[in-house]
Amino acid sequence: MEQFILKVEGMSCGHCKAAVETALMEAGAQKAVVNLEAGTVDVHFDPQKLTIDGVKEAIEEAGYDVV
Amino acid sequence: MEQFILKVEGMSCGHCKAAVETALMEAGAQKAVVNLEAGTVDVHFDPQKLTIDGVKEAIEEAGYDVV
Repeated sequence: MEQFILKVEGMSCGHCKAAVETALMEAGAQKAVVNLEAGTVDVHFDPQKLTIDGVKEAIEEAGYDVV
Repeated sequence: MEQFILKVEGMSCGHCKAAVETALMEAGAQKAVVNLEAGTVDVHFDPQKLTIDGVKEAIEEAGYDVV
């Protein structure tokens, strides 16, 4: 299992939190938790199912920028 | 047809805009347009179908505060 904490721009509310977490779970993450105050997402994934590039792509497709 | 522009707190992103507009349309508004920059919603409704109190209630049930 790999774990990264990524800085993400543009997440402003509970809907944004849900959008990013859902996008990551749908992309195959094992766990994804957004911290709105910090502007971060803590993502856990099996490297055989998902890559860090795939994580970033899922976040960007949801409409947010990975810093 | 009645029209009001209400000041609403807490709308921070496109999801919030959609949530408030959808809540108002579902409550029976004829038209509802959120301006995120201004923090307002422009709502048009038939007073036989909806009241200003119903408008405020729909916005608050969606999770936002009418100022």
